Formats: sequence, structure tokens, C-alpha cells
Amino acid sequence: MDLPKRIELIEVCPRDGFQNVHDIIPFEGKVAIIKKLAEAGFKRLEVVSFVSPKAIPQMADAKEVVAAVRDTLKAHGVRTVALVPNAQGVETAVECGINELTYVISVSRSHNIANVRRTPEESMEQFKTLIQEYGHKIDFRLALATALGCPFGEEIRTERVAEMVQFGLDLGCKEISIADTVGMSNPKRTYDLMNALTAQFGADKFVMHLHDTRGLALANTLAAMQLGVHKFETAAGGLGGCPFAPGAAGNVATEDTLNMMHEMGIETGIDNDALHEAVLLLQQYVHAPIVSHLMSLYKTKPCV
Amino acid sequence: MDLPKRIELIEVCPRDGFQNVHDIIPFEGKVAIIKKLAEAGFKRLEVVSFVSPKAIPQMADAKEVVAAVRDTLKAHGVRTVALVPNAQGVETAVECGINELTYVISVSRSHNIANVRRTPEESMEQFKTLIQEYGHKIDFRLALATALGCPFGEEIRTERVAEMVQFGLDLGCKEISIADTVGMSNPKRTYDLMNALTAQFGADKFVMHLHDTRGLALANTLAAMQLGVHKFETAAGGLGGCPFAPGAAGNVATEDTLNMMHEMGIETGIDNDALHEAVLLLQQYVHAPIVSHLMSLYKTKPCV
Repeated sequence: MDLPKRIELIEVCPRDGFQNVHDIIPFEGKVAIIKKLAEAGFKRLEVVSFVSPKAIPQMADAKEVVAAVRDTLKAHGVRTVALVPNAQGVETAVECGINELTYVISVSRSHNIANVRRTPEESMEQFKTLIQEYGHKIDFRLALATALGCPFGEEIRTERVAEMVQFGLDLGCKEISIADTVGMSNPKRTYDLMNALTAQFGADKFVMHLHDTRGLALANTLAAMQLGVHKFETAAGGLGGCPFAPGAAGNVATEDTLNMMHEMGIETGIDNDALHEAVLLLQQYVHAPIVSHLMSLYKTKPCV
Repeated sequence: MDLPKRIELIEVCPRDGFQNVHDIIPFEGKVAIIKKLAEAGFKRLEVVSFVSPKAIPQMADAKEVVAAVRDTLKAHGVRTVALVPNAQGVETAVECGINELTYVISVSRSHNIANVRRTPEESMEQFKTLIQEYGHKIDFRLALATALGCPFGEEIRTERVAEMVQFGLDLGCKEISIADTVGMSNPKRTYDLMNALTAQFGADKFVMHLHDTRGLALANTLAAMQLGVHKFETAAGGLGGCPFAPGAAGNVATEDTLNMMHEMGIETGIDNDALHEAVLLLQQYVHAPIVSHLMSLYKTKPCV
């Protein structure tokens, strides 16, 4: 089994996780958790999204959170990532000194319209404009939502995903995030898509963003790794994705992914004990059970 | 990704699951669940263990359970499997008309002693005697516990596993179950062991028995499938393994495994809706949360 010797985990809980918890995590909780994650050794943290506080009240204090963690993150050599949906978000991010911006376009037309009330083509046009205007000030990354399955039943063609990857790379994005937005993929599907994409563009260009709705995220991770993909977005505590089904539809848990990597002898640069502390801290602020497998082991004695 | 076109799932919840639930499932519950599982299409069901009721009170009604389900299972063409630790168990099983017997030996010396108060060599001797005495009356299968990791830290050598496989095959076992008893394996370890074993003995000879303690059972399943392994023991509801950490250390859930297989286009012969009904029935009798991923989806609306 040919696997990368080293992989990068990009922690997205402060963005994808915090924005999906039912009860808003207080400012001091967000700051404490983000600082703890920085101590764990992540070199990139998706810390916030700069979005309308009416649409996503969980992110209303995004600017203040970034200001409060900036020095700690800098001291630990952590690059900050933020999600932005529009020019206003980009401007705020640039003001805040964010390092990289994630812009999301759904491969699925129906999902993109449901998500941002635009067709994918309109989003692509907007992304192009944003890069033309702000690309000299800040790095952009493109996230392709529903690349591994559309919740509205739309067929996702590999050729279309490849076209959108090409579009992002042509605009200067250094990497493209391939998202299984609602956890619909399976290892074969993940392998087939990533086989086509890595053959065309190289494995270095891709980050996987996998949700664990059906418990397949680690198997999907393994499938992508066998093709040399070595960057994965994960969320501490398995948060994220769907506030109404805690754990069921969240991101793959960082602690579960980290355990798999370390058990396979793959370097991550992440300290497991510090991550453990971050997850326990998270549990103090999230009023829903943390359902990652490793969390079960944290709470109970090892079972012999 | 080269995978088998068809796999067999051997349902072990009535044995490995029921004997590990804290509250004993009543006779009528066991019978109802086993019948429902037979309706779902499993062709082999591990229905009971014939063990001392003092040691495992959950199995005290094993004979009665087998008698109550016999006709239904026969009508559905289901072969019955039972676990036995000794000659008394074998005799009861033969009387009850069981089709196949599972005998467990731990590769780990310390685990075998903890489990059955014998060295592995003593267990091997006992197994040989049992086969000599009863092998003409009933089929035996050998399960190698801790083949993928020992909870007491003992090193498990591939050569030793291979020797024990050879021992079982030499005695006439048609298949050997390779167990990750406490869910310590990872996909690379599973791949490496099964790569060696399938190269030496062929993939047909093996059944995988994987626990999901750290959420890696489906990734381990995938790793074994890539080597052509096509028989897997799973438990409805993810029950089993450790009564003190529900869900954390159980067998990989049948419903999660089935979903992965079906999503990858692999035939199993199992009806997902009937299995779903069996899991819901199980939930009525097990006074602990069923934590399989598919169960989360059963209970909540699909998340878009």
C-alpha cells in the first residue's frame, strides 16, 4: 500500500464547525479553542468566515476573534485561512491580515443556487472578479462543493469537476479543495474522481474536504491517499456540516484522522495530546455530544 | 481500484453483540431479531455461543433460541454458526443442528490466557482434539483473535499468524477468521498482514472480523477488499466487543458496511430496508444508544 510519508491536516473546526453549532460559542471559547489548536501544531487554520451576521450569527464576532488570536497564531507559525462569499468579505479579511481565502463554488447547479443564490457560472464570474481585484493582496483557494455528490440528485460529471479545477488553477489558485459536502461519496467514487484529477493536475494541487455522514470519510481519505493526495481539511470533534444531526453529518474528526495517520506511521506535525486538550475544551462549549471515535476513547477507559 | 464484485456479510450480532450488551436481551427479543436478520438475506448467521451460563449469562438460553429460530432460518436458506470453547459446547451445538462452529484462538499469548486461561499452544491442541472427535459431524472454522493487534502490547508477528492459519487449514477448516479483536489495526497494517496471508493461502480462505474502536473498521475493510478478501463478519447496530463502551469498541456495524458496499456497486444479497428494520428492533431491546452512522441517519432526517 503506497501512501504519502507526510500529510498536512488543515483544521477547519473554527470555521466549518463553529458556524454549524446550534448554540453560538462565546467569544472567549472560540479564542481559547483556536489558541489550543495552534499549540497542537497545525500550520494552517481556517479560523472564521466573513459573512453576513444575519445569515450566520455564529460568525458575527469574526473580526474580533481573528484580532484576539493573531499574535498566538503568528508565534506558532500558523497561516490563517478564512472563507469569504463576496468582495465585502475579502476586504474585511485583507484588513484583518488573513493569509489565505477560501471561495466556494458548488459543482452542482442546484446546490450552488440553494447555497448562494447564483448559478455556478455566476459564482465563477464573481471569483474571477475577486481575484482580479484582490489577487495581488492575498492568496485565494477554490473549494468545489458537492464534487463528490449532490444532495439534490444532480449528476456530478468528472469532466465538469476537472474544468472547474482548471478554471481555479488558471486564475492562480495554488490548490483546489475537493469537497464531499454532505458525505455522499464512497471510497471507489473518491478514488475514481481523484485518480482522474491527480493524473491531469498532480496530487499537490488538491486538498480533500470530507464529511463523515455515513462513516466513510476515513475510507475516502485512505482512497485519496493511495493516489498521493496529502492535504486534508478536518475538524476537531467532527463538528460541522449540519447543525441538526450532531456527529452524523459533520466533518471527519481531526482526532480520528490523526490517529489513523500516526498509526500508519505517517507524519503530520500535530501533537496528539494537545489536540486531545482542544477537543475536551470544545466539549465545554458545544452543547451536543462530541461523537468522534477517539472522543469515545477519551471519555471511557481503554477497553481490553 | 480493484474490488470484489460480490462480498458475503456474515452477521454476528446475535452472538458477539448479544453476549456483550449489559442488559440481557429477553428470549423473545433475540428470536425476533434473528428472524428479522434472516429475512434481510444473510446466508450465514452466528446465532449463539454455547458457553457456561455462569461466565456469560447473556447466552444462557442459547439452545432455546436456536430451536425457536431453526425453521425460519432453514426456510430462508441461512446456515447457522455458533461459537464454542470446548467439547461440551460442540456436543450441544451438534444436538441443536448448528451448521458451522467457530473456535477462537488468540495469536497473542497473554490475550489467550486472559480469555480462556490456556496458552495458544494448549488451545491449538484442544482444537485438534475437537476436530478429530467431531470433525465428521460438523464444520469447524478457526478464528484468530488479536491477529491485528494485542491489547497487552504483545508483538503479533505475521509469520506466527501464517503458521496458525496453516494449522487451521491443515485440520480441514475451510476458512479462517482474522480478527481485530479490540480495533487496534489500521489500513496499512491490515493491508500488510492480509497481503502476506492472501499471497500464501488465497483470498478465499479468509473472513475479516473487524472492530470499530477507533473508527477505522471501514477503512480496514477497504484495505482487505483491495486484496480480494470478500467475506466479512459484521454486527447489526455495531454491537459487540465491549459492554462498557457502547459503540466505541463494538464490531463494525453491518448497516454501515452494507451501505459502503452498495454505494460502491458491490453485491451482498442483503436487503437494506429489512436490515434497517432489524436495527430498529434491536434498539427496542438494547438499553444503550445504537451509534452506527446509518442509525444516525435512520433517526434524523437526511441533512441537505
